[in-house]
Amino acid sequence: MTTVGGPRVVIVGGGFGGLYAARAFRGKSVQVTLVDRRNHHLFQPLLYQVATAALSPGDIAHPIRAILRRQKNVRVFLAEAVSVELKGRRLILRDGSIPYDYLILATGARHAYFGHDEWEDHAPGLKSLEDALEIRRRILLAFERAEREPDAQQRRALLTFVIVGAGPTGVELAGAIAEIARQVIVSDFRAIDPRDARVILVEAGPRVLPTFPEELSLAAEGSLNKLGVEVQKNRLVTSIEPARVRLGQEVIEAATVLWAAGVTASPLAQSLGAPLDRAGRVRVEPDLTISGHPEVLVIGDLAAFTHQTGNPLPGVCPVAIQQGRQAARNILRAIDGLPSESFHYWDKGNLATIGRAHAVADLGRFRISGVVAWLAWLFVHVFFLIGFRNRVLVIFEWAWAYITYQRGARLITGDMEKILPKVSHTVR
Amino acid sequence: MTTVGGPRVVIVGGGFGGLYAARAFRGKSVQVTLVDRRNHHLFQPLLYQVATAALSPGDIAHPIRAILRRQKNVRVFLAEAVSVELKGRRLILRDGSIPYDYLILATGARHAYFGHDEWEDHAPGLKSLEDALEIRRRILLAFERAEREPDAQQRRALLTFVIVGAGPTGVELAGAIAEIARQVIVSDFRAIDPRDARVILVEAGPRVLPTFPEELSLAAEGSLNKLGVEVQKNRLVTSIEPARVRLGQEVIEAATVLWAAGVTASPLAQSLGAPLDRAGRVRVEPDLTISGHPEVLVIGDLAAFTHQTGNPLPGVCPVAIQQGRQAARNILRAIDGLPSESFHYWDKGNLATIGRAHAVADLGRFRISGVVAWLAWLFVHVFFLIGFRNRVLVIFEWAWAYITYQRGARLITGDMEKILPKVSHTVR
Repeated sequence: MTTVGGPRVVIVGGGFGGLYAARAFRGKSVQVTLVDRRNHHLFQPLLYQVATAALSPGDIAHPIRAILRRQKNVRVFLAEAVSVELKGRRLILRDGSIPYDYLILATGARHAYFGHDEWEDHAPGLKSLEDALEIRRRILLAFERAEREPDAQQRRALLTFVIVGAGPTGVELAGAIAEIARQVIVSDFRAIDPRDARVILVEAGPRVLPTFPEELSLAAEGSLNKLGVEVQKNRLVTSIEPARVRLGQEVIEAATVLWAAGVTASPLAQSLGAPLDRAGRVRVEPDLTISGHPEVLVIGDLAAFTHQTGNPLPGVCPVAIQQGRQAARNILRAIDGLPSESFHYWDKGNLATIGRAHAVADLGRFRISGVVAWLAWLFVHVFFLIGFRNRVLVIFEWAWAYITYQRGARLITGDMEKILPKVSHTVR
Repeated sequence: MTTVGGPRVVIVGGGFGGLYAARAFRGKSVQVTLVDRRNHHLFQPLLYQVATAALSPGDIAHPIRAILRRQKNVRVFLAEAVSVELKGRRLILRDGSIPYDYLILATGARHAYFGHDEWEDHAPGLKSLEDALEIRRRILLAFERAEREPDAQQRRALLTFVIVGAGPTGVELAGAIAEIARQVIVSDFRAIDPRDARVILVEAGPRVLPTFPEELSLAAEGSLNKLGVEVQKNRLVTSIEPARVRLGQEVIEAATVLWAAGVTASPLAQSLGAPLDRAGRVRVEPDLTISGHPEVLVIGDLAAFTHQTGNPLPGVCPVAIQQGRQAARNILRAIDGLPSESFHYWDKGNLATIGRAHAVADLGRFRISGVVAWLAWLFVHVFFLIGFRNRVLVIFEWAWAYITYQRGARLITGDMEKILPKVSHTVR
């Protein structure tokens, strides 16, 4: 179908890893097919802002086709990859298959419930735009229902929000929900005071942001406390039921429970027959290939790359971007008959934000928190957003929110049966 | 629950009619309850731009609560009204009821299929944000599926778009889809040329934009033709099946069929026992009340107001806004013991846009088409959008689209089962 010749490279996944790999083939004599089950690249680091009504889905997503439209050796396929036939060198789709000479797998991870999949309905996680809209619906509906709820105990449960897991996503969600309750919607209700809302961040470990240096964990916890978030550390969630979370003996009645505690690699990994780690990630060789198959490379959140520090590299964008570029380079070297290079991650640092004008930044020797870290966070996130339009929209939404204390995307959308309050009573 | 005293006014519907009625009670000694089953006011005239990926839902919707948050005598209820108990003066909700002294009904209209409700699945209409996202998904998916479809005849059906009904919504949809195919996504595909797409606008009557003067209908048809839209007039749709439309003997194979041909009033009208017209609208008295019930007023698309021209006023925003204000004024007069005033519609004109830089404007004595009408259209639509943020976002999106020929919100979202192509074949 494509007029370009050369070896066939198939890339699965249009996240940062897959996209930067595809771009690295620009102008090269290869036929690239990028397969994704979504038509859009999603900027995951800002997904929590869609979930908390600060941004619209269109602000942080961009059609993969549009990003690659000028790169004529790439075709984009909307399809779901289900497995890899290593022997026949075919990627099996739910509806067909594609042959490859080289394969890059970059399908990422989903949230995982540590064997308690039944918790998912009561405590959604945050990985896709649909997840974000579901969480946004739950947060906004909780306040709507509380406004109409005559029973004080029920109202209290409706105004209680539990976030499980205090990594960057959990911290960012908790901070944003506290801001909504304390600042954004304060004047919107008549029967309730949204400032009565409890936002509880539950963490199994001894501190928030466990992958950051301890001093930054402390700074982040301080910022969360100032926003009114209750941080509960060393607490293990033992069960999640409808509108109820159990932490051992303690029971928290909460209409809204959000899951930010764990991820597992995309199931595509299992079909490779390669060794996986506990989180389902593929243990890759130093050159990102899988053992015995130099034509198959695994990158990003789907890969467990342990050759640099002994531990797997974290599931963050810079790792995916750098691995994407290295994977493409190694394929081009193989085509030229050159030996592959080992991947080496250049860690430029880690950032996490906690509400308005607060963030923490771990830049190796420099560890900062507060406004300067927040400005760094803003800059880096706008820089890595794809598309001029998205950048302008996000900057405008942030500026507007900063000045007015409002959040622009407070829409409850979706299935009407999910939207309408289930309480039934007569109103005076 | 509210601390303000005075007669209880209940308004059902947060569209233009309900919202302007609520605002007209500002500072008055009445207790207003605004009931809507959505949490947002929706700017319907730009809904087709969400359906055609030019705008995001958040750009044209605004939380009703946020709009009215400073008006302390208004409380907002997220609830679905199901009927009116005229004798007991209660509005019956799906989950409870609310007593009223005065009632304003402004629940608008839905699209109607003239007794062929089974067509709805195959030819969605455009009234809510969910409708718009469904139509956006269908349009974008048709191109994605065509890109993967090996069969030429199937591909042709995937690239055929039929819009039924050539009122403003149908004309605007047809123009926008033609623009997407001819200008926006031209470079995005490898196997298909999106410019091969056929966009067919079917109209039962003898001309497009039947409510406009004939010279403007002709101008609009000329603009549609220039965009590559096939206009078929005097053609009646006799059946709509999956991927197939019948116009009498003629059969059009089209994967995407959109319905813009008719509306019917919200079912709430039926519970009033008042006379309805053929479209299900309530025949109101000159003062917008219903016969025998001076405390119940019906406005906007739900009302058939025939006292001015003999025909019902059109279902457009200015009618709803002016009726909302008059309804509030008549209630305040009744409270003060004054007789009610008759409503009089001040028709400032009609506008419809047809793609990039083309519109028609019927301003009474002045009938214009082309760029000047388009600028008038832009100005009026930005002016009536609610919220500074929405105005900035829409202006930016339009400027960006005008300059780059791109559309920002080309996301396919929703249920994965609906998204993934159903074709099954092996790819070479």
